[in-house]
Amino acid sequence: MYSFVNDYSEGAHPRILEALVRTNLEQNTGYGEDIHSRKAAEQIKRLINREDADIHFIPGGTQTNMLVISSFLRPHECVISADTAHINVHETGAIELTGHKVIALPHKEGKLSPDDIIKTLDYHRDEHMVKPRMVYISNSTELGTIYTKAELEAIHELCREKDLYLFLDGVRLGAALASGDNDLTMEDIASLADVFYIGGTKNGALLGEALVICREELKKEFRYLIKQKGAMLAKGFVIGIQFEELFRDDLYFQLSGHANRMAERIAQALVRKGYGFYATPCTNQLFPILPEKAVKELSKEFGFLVQKRDNMGNTVIRLVTSWATSKESVDRLCDYIEHI
Amino acid sequence: MYSFVNDYSEGAHPRILEALVRTNLEQNTGYGEDIHSRKAAEQIKRLINREDADIHFIPGGTQTNMLVISSFLRPHECVISADTAHINVHETGAIELTGHKVIALPHKEGKLSPDDIIKTLDYHRDEHMVKPRMVYISNSTELGTIYTKAELEAIHELCREKDLYLFLDGVRLGAALASGDNDLTMEDIASLADVFYIGGTKNGALLGEALVICREELKKEFRYLIKQKGAMLAKGFVIGIQFEELFRDDLYFQLSGHANRMAERIAQALVRKGYGFYATPCTNQLFPILPEKAVKELSKEFGFLVQKRDNMGNTVIRLVTSWATSKESVDRLCDYIEHI
Amino acid sequence: MYSFVNDYSEGAHPRILEALVRTNLEQNTGYGEDIHSRKAAEQIKRLINREDADIHFIPGGTQTNMLVISSFLRPHECVISADTAHINVHETGAIELTGHKVIALPHKEGKLSPDDIIKTLDYHRDEHMVKPRMVYISNSTELGTIYTKAELEAIHELCREKDLYLFLDGVRLGAALASGDNDLTMEDIASLADVFYIGGTKNGALLGEALVICREELKKEFRYLIKQKGAMLAKGFVIGIQFEELFRDDLYFQLSGHANRMAERIAQALVRKGYGFYATPCTNQLFPILPEKAVKELSKEFGFLVQKRDNMGNTVIRLVTSWATSKESVDRLCDYIEHI
Amino acid sequence: MYSFVNDYSEGAHPRILEALVRTNLEQNTGYGEDIHSRKAAEQIKRLINREDADIHFIPGGTQTNMLVISSFLRPHECVISADTAHINVHETGAIELTGHKVIALPHKEGKLSPDDIIKTLDYHRDEHMVKPRMVYISNSTELGTIYTKAELEAIHELCREKDLYLFLDGVRLGAALASGDNDLTMEDIASLADVFYIGGTKNGALLGEALVICREELKKEFRYLIKQKGAMLAKGFVIGIQFEELFRDDLYFQLSGHANRMAERIAQALVRKGYGFYATPCTNQLFPILPEKAVKELSKEFGFLVQKRDNMGNTVIRLVTSWATSKESVDRLCDYIEHI
Repeated sequence: MYSFVNDYSEGAHPRILEALVRTNLEQNTGYGEDIHSRKAAEQIKRLINREDADIHFIPGGTQTNMLVISSFLRPHECVISADTAHINVHETGAIELTGHKVIALPHKEGKLSPDDIIKTLDYHRDEHMVKPRMVYISNSTELGTIYTKAELEAIHELCREKDLYLFLDGVRLGAALASGDNDLTMEDIASLADVFYIGGTKNGALLGEALVICREELKKEFRYLIKQKGAMLAKGFVIGIQFEELFRDDLYFQLSGHANRMAERIAQALVRKGYGFYATPCTNQLFPILPEKAVKELSKEFGFLVQKRDNMGNTVIRLVTSWATSKESVDRLCDYIEHI
Repeated sequence: MYSFVNDYSEGAHPRILEALVRTNLEQNTGYGEDIHSRKAAEQIKRLINREDADIHFIPGGTQTNMLVISSFLRPHECVISADTAHINVHETGAIELTGHKVIALPHKEGKLSPDDIIKTLDYHRDEHMVKPRMVYISNSTELGTIYTKAELEAIHELCREKDLYLFLDGVRLGAALASGDNDLTMEDIASLADVFYIGGTKNGALLGEALVICREELKKEFRYLIKQKGAMLAKGFVIGIQFEELFRDDLYFQLSGHANRMAERIAQALVRKGYGFYATPCTNQLFPILPEKAVKELSKEFGFLVQKRDNMGNTVIRLVTSWATSKESVDRLCDYIEHI
Repeated sequence: MYSFVNDYSEGAHPRILEALVRTNLEQNTGYGEDIHSRKAAEQIKRLINREDADIHFIPGGTQTNMLVISSFLRPHECVISADTAHINVHETGAIELTGHKVIALPHKEGKLSPDDIIKTLDYHRDEHMVKPRMVYISNSTELGTIYTKAELEAIHELCREKDLYLFLDGVRLGAALASGDNDLTMEDIASLADVFYIGGTKNGALLGEALVICREELKKEFRYLIKQKGAMLAKGFVIGIQFEELFRDDLYFQLSGHANRMAERIAQALVRKGYGFYATPCTNQLFPILPEKAVKELSKEFGFLVQKRDNMGNTVIRLVTSWATSKESVDRLCDYIEHI
Repeated sequence: MYSFVNDYSEGAHPRILEALVRTNLEQNTGYGEDIHSRKAAEQIKRLINREDADIHFIPGGTQTNMLVISSFLRPHECVISADTAHINVHETGAIELTGHKVIALPHKEGKLSPDDIIKTLDYHRDEHMVKPRMVYISNSTELGTIYTKAELEAIHELCREKDLYLFLDGVRLGAALASGDNDLTMEDIASLADVFYIGGTKNGALLGEALVICREELKKEFRYLIKQKGAMLAKGFVIGIQFEELFRDDLYFQLSGHANRMAERIAQALVRKGYGFYATPCTNQLFPILPEKAVKELSKEFGFLVQKRDNMGNTVIRLVTSWATSKESVDRLCDYIEHI
């Protein structure tokens, strides 16, 4: 049984483990103030061409989301997201726990549209309603789709005009940027978003997300907020060392590239058999629509999630590849697809 | 320069790294529902002789504290701690962030006394004041001291009588149990505390705390609360694997034993020179009182924290040893102490 | 210019002011522990035939909603409401401020349907999502409609079966019970809801809502929670005296009855002119659909809210009557309607 | 039995009730946007000579405290108060409920000293600790004492220098300003505090506090925060009308003056009998130290609180006067004191 359930089934890319072994007995400063975290931050700043950015390494994605949103909003302000957004459905109300409403708008393949944001702003017009102050998007999205440069610029413009912060959840930013359909660079992201993060957990690290704060007014005393949220590891260097390795060269993008290529081969096999998709395949998450019989057949040898079922016997499943997905397993899956 | 600043300067004990390397390419279930986390939990249950306990692996200590306190208290309830307690001074108000007051009582060598708890209960008598509902203690304490079995039993009895939860922060539980002055077992802890945790970060793991919930009524839907607080790692197995190794045999106690022995040798060197201590040396944290000149001298070659200074030229410093502290560095420090 | 904007434009019914004047120089115990609050509570208990209920008097509706929801839910639990619900749109995120998500379902004339609740429960199935634990309804609803006994029983049954608390916001409960279409009694409400409140502010009091807790497990230490939320007035008797007067005889229902009759006359005038309604007229809130020209005409002499506009030149306005609405002003409005 | 238990046993000063009766059938705008609230705000602005101040009317004191503190602090910031402060002991943890730690310093007759504030700032030096950002004082204090102009200026200067907000709880500001020992004006208060409030509940109103925001940066979108906290009454004019009457002429100060004079007569009777005080008598709250026998004797005919008892048979009681305290009852109490 080979699992295509998610992109966090295995540990870390071997180079990352090697880096941890290599540095293991060094004595490092605690709480993320070590030299590895500093170097990793420098690498990221160069990559985004923003010496002024503040970089913080946070253990996980939900934690990063709640930290960012609760740190930057005043109590009566809220965040706008797609209804499919991780913060809206899959974080057990972590954002609301920090006191803020998530206004969920209908998604377009997992993405937000400027028009829907404008309608929401128009509707929220007085002090009896929450005040929208941040837009949350994820790239790649929960449906594996990506924002084009034009789309991201349009949302950025709108946010500037309406005085909204733009927060980009990059738990799978590697997959987005490594996509064949992508026209964004990491530098673009840093100039269009006020705050974003570069996911490590789902791209080869044991754990860790690199949070990038691009807007001056958001930087102040942020380490207090990290500590207060329980997001400052005593051995912060454990994350710093991993990101240092991921960005020592372009390992980060190599890993995403591999994952995407594996997904693409699976997608092609599915297309050859005439199956459709619930969302356009772009990255390492595929959402094919299969007859129930095919789902049953595949499940004999492969792990995956069932996303939703319709009344006509069709099922949307989710297949996810990662840096660790082997060519052999993909070959085998494609073979299976061809013969079901 | 050798650092005695804390017990989290190095990575993980080599056996733990080996375990991570060995299991690295396994496909594990996410979010702590993997086989390693299950096995580690079984090992801990055997150790405490409590098949009914619920075990959860949490990334860090502050996170565990806020998770436990906010999950078990109703909004108007508060937690009692020593004024030296980590939750009171060194978590940037993380407990208050979850809505609960910390009532800090004067410590006795870092410990709480039942008499002070009773006085606090007597004072909080109506609905215009918060309602004490939990007692938080740490073992070993922030001053490196430990609770005797009699002391812990007395607090346990009081908590039973007054309907208070007893929560034991075991960030350094290994050091406490491995102390020569200790008369408690892990099983005792589990029968006396309602909830406690076994620290990994400060005893050889890269990160992770094993939370043990002993009281039935506290177990319900706890995974929701972990997730909501951002404390559920996608690769939860990264912590599970480490605890599995720590409790595969008695590695956990060997590591603490080593740290304590290293500290004891330093303490003896200090005693030989006639220095006193701010708190009785028992575990891996020492708080010697030194003349300012000696502090200056030591700081040339060793790293440590200055805890407090008095008006008479005396300084309390903190020296901490760990599983990674080398005999050579301790010899060298003792030598230094002898000659200052 | 006569205002039909809302039912809280005037002060209190003269009998209530008289009661305040009559008792003004009495020395009463503070914080709602006075004899008037006690008597008012006894009157309500008799009315609902529940000696065991706990009654608390709270200054306002938003405050009561946040107090109830945050007191009864654990951190990961959420409340289900109609998307038109006051807690969802018109309380500036007060519920989220207390840490809880509001799951808003499509309304049917302002009401929730059991089927939609069931679908929501089915969807929220694991610890990555919030856990629904309470259903919030309002009677009369934000659209002036009311629940029938059969409808309320169906929701009650579902809540029992699925272990959900049922919370009924009765800011306009008087209007609901005094409606010609109503088949519920106050006693029914108390036996079908776990917690509900009887609105004073919008039915003749200066301020105040009578919160009724019917379920044993929800009563414990509730005064602590009231105090902590800033909802315990020093001069709590100011609310107690008003409810004592409202329920000394059936003044409470007389006032709602008057408001409803005034609304009914307006509704008939609108019907006679062939206008339709956005929601079926039942109580003291009317939502007629008017051509823009008529709206403009009416606004010359009467105050009201514009609820929404469509693209075809039609406008939904809101007209509200109260205990204070004079027959003369209603006559005049009907006359206007007839001639526009 | 005549009660000296508190200053909120009676309803409202007759002139206030008359104002409510007089305006009762007016149609006013809701939510504090009515003409009476506007006029009352204008009167207060004139009184403090600050056209630029923002004035909001809030139902109660605890609510005002939690609203102010939680609105102006970022999540990691905390408030400094005396250990006797209302927010520290008598609000059931309302401030912590909003996420903020209260750092309680030893009081000097209920007051804070600049030296203690400085020590606290020095101690809180990094991101592992909360960040002090606001100083909370009350005038008169919980012990009935008052701040001199020099004392308030010293705290103001310190706050400016250290970038702390100064928040003055004026639940009993009338009593402070009407004290014979007072050298502050309302205008001074407004120029020295960043935010303060003028208590109505304890000085003749049925309910209500007038919150004055003097600092520009704190004003933005404050009505959102009022609403979100459940502190915006639908019939906001009920408070506006009362403050309009209190400040129509100097009724507010007349009422405090009367209360203080009544207290002074009682204090003189106590002094004549040689009794000492737990805190220097200045305003309408007295804390005489009496032998237990005298306490028992007084309690036969008068209501009061027992504040604390010592081991030598002495008891501190609290006697409070108000606008409603009759000369006859004071005569009778003085007579009693003379003969016990």
